[in-house]
Amino acid sequence: MGATTRTVRLRPPYLVFIGDQQDPSYAKTGFGLVDWRRELVAGQLRFGDKPVDLGVPDMDVEAAVAAGAKSLLIGVASVGGVIPDEWWNIIVAAANKGLDIVSGLHGRLADNSALAAAARESGALLVDVRRPPPDLPVGSGRKRSGKRVLMLGTDCAVGKKYSALALTESMKALGADATFRATGQTGIMIAGEGIAIDAVVADFVAGAAELVSPDNDDDHWDVIEGQGSLSHPGYSGVSLGLLHGSQPDAIVVCHDAMRTSTLGWPDYPLPTIAECRELGILLGRRTNPAVYCAGISVNTSELAESARGPYLKQLSADMGLPCVDPVADGCEAIARRLLVPA
Amino acid sequence: MGATTRTVRLRPPYLVFIGDQQDPSYAKTGFGLVDWRRELVAGQLRFGDKPVDLGVPDMDVEAAVAAGAKSLLIGVASVGGVIPDEWWNIIVAAANKGLDIVSGLHGRLADNSALAAAARESGALLVDVRRPPPDLPVGSGRKRSGKRVLMLGTDCAVGKKYSALALTESMKALGADATFRATGQTGIMIAGEGIAIDAVVADFVAGAAELVSPDNDDDHWDVIEGQGSLSHPGYSGVSLGLLHGSQPDAIVVCHDAMRTSTLGWPDYPLPTIAECRELGILLGRRTNPAVYCAGISVNTSELAESARGPYLKQLSADMGLPCVDPVADGCEAIARRLLVPA
Repeated sequence: MGATTRTVRLRPPYLVFIGDQQDPSYAKTGFGLVDWRRELVAGQLRFGDKPVDLGVPDMDVEAAVAAGAKSLLIGVASVGGVIPDEWWNIIVAAANKGLDIVSGLHGRLADNSALAAAARESGALLVDVRRPPPDLPVGSGRKRSGKRVLMLGTDCAVGKKYSALALTESMKALGADATFRATGQTGIMIAGEGIAIDAVVADFVAGAAELVSPDNDDDHWDVIEGQGSLSHPGYSGVSLGLLHGSQPDAIVVCHDAMRTSTLGWPDYPLPTIAECRELGILLGRRTNPAVYCAGISVNTSELAESARGPYLKQLSADMGLPCVDPVADGCEAIARRLLVPA
Repeated sequence: MGATTRTVRLRPPYLVFIGDQQDPSYAKTGFGLVDWRRELVAGQLRFGDKPVDLGVPDMDVEAAVAAGAKSLLIGVASVGGVIPDEWWNIIVAAANKGLDIVSGLHGRLADNSALAAAARESGALLVDVRRPPPDLPVGSGRKRSGKRVLMLGTDCAVGKKYSALALTESMKALGADATFRATGQTGIMIAGEGIAIDAVVADFVAGAAELVSPDNDDDHWDVIEGQGSLSHPGYSGVSLGLLHGSQPDAIVVCHDAMRTSTLGWPDYPLPTIAECRELGILLGRRTNPAVYCAGISVNTSELAESARGPYLKQLSADMGLPCVDPVADGCEAIARRLLVPA
């Protein structure tokens, strides 16, 4: 059980393309992959002056193929969004050697005719992880076997992906059978599969979410990356479709301790953590009447060092729930709550 | 003010294509157009044995062009979904004469190469009303001028489009400046513009809804067709994005008196009218804190004749709101509540 059908699928090991990108903030995908899935990374491909270093072996396409790499994964964004010719030459060469090409960039890989021809010739796949698979179903609402926990954010970019990854590790460390389920491009790169939910046609969002966390063993947990926020003036529909399709047994509220208004929507104050939890429970009950909140995961990195502990302790007392900073503390407290509900 | 930008736009008057379709249930678009926008219909094009009759003049393409028609609008679905060659020949001939071709069918018009060539030659537009316009924005949440009322359903197919059309007429009859705003394919055919919200990529649903009801005069009302239901296990995300993007001042709950479970999802009991109203108010407050419920619009056609009046009277007493059957009663009671809030 547990095979995900009809989601995007990647073939490791990966040669991570860094190129001549010098700015680490443009290399989040590469760093995320090495942080969470080091064992799937054969090496990195870099050139030029002082490129970003992921701390894995440097290799060119031929060396990567010899080392068993199956895909070249573009681990950086290009400044301005346009891929330089120098990058294309290497990407085409990798496709010529039969490596799948994996991209989270906006443009379609197949729109580069030289790359399309090389892939056709060698049989390499061109995988745009932002693009959902075709023929997604409408959400059925059918109860699936296995257990699920979904990250719900008070906003975008509050650490939902990180929280889901950390929670998966904490659950595994406690002996549970748990799988991180990706719903966004970087998450898909890390998980090796998934669907970029926000790129799905609206009618099929819940159906795509159902595919992301299919039937599984009764004691298996899917830990599902969230998207957007139920209170987001732009993206709420994505979040609700994902919630209903995920039919979670539990939710974890994710928050940034310094955030007071919606990122990029300054006229929209953030919902409180309690409001986010209550909305998640109220709406989540439609497809899972037993849904409960298992904890709060807060990015406290911009609080003063001395303030973090008291902040989380007070929050935990107020909410009656485990409250953690997933980077500083890990998610063991939430994992315990999931595995031995109060 | 009030121009809708970047939505699908149609050019009347229309020649409504019926072809040899004999089954009125396949001609809902044609009947809806004649029911609500008779003044935009030049005539109907029919052939074969006992085709459906919309009760408007029969004419061929040449006569329609001479009568000033600007578009051929496909007013029927074909049995099995495939357009017969006989239909294509006439559609291509219409495009050759410069008529825009308007289709709500699933397939893309431009995928017929003869039609694409004819349109290229004559300058006719091929308008697939199911396909959203390109380059939709993300919802901004910015407060727009003018007033809005949105239909919210307890389910799909409970009369949201009909209610919005009838309410628009009732508001106009009371002297208000009101515009029906379409969010689905048949509604777009009737309104002559709009966006098929459920076909929009999830990230852009609220943004598309914002385009559907743009800034307008302070006392102008947009009466917005709803989609799906906030409680629908498959389509809830569409409904929430539409709600947040519409930022309605008021909602009208639409319901079918005989419906007890979600159409096609028998395991999902329908929310009550009160639950639907409360969810709409709770969620709608995010983009319009003053949102209120102006009434309930119920399809009572399958109740016994003698039961309809008592049903609506009891519902009105229970809810403290005007409750109407829009077909039997019209929507004047709800229009009055909107124009002179209690």
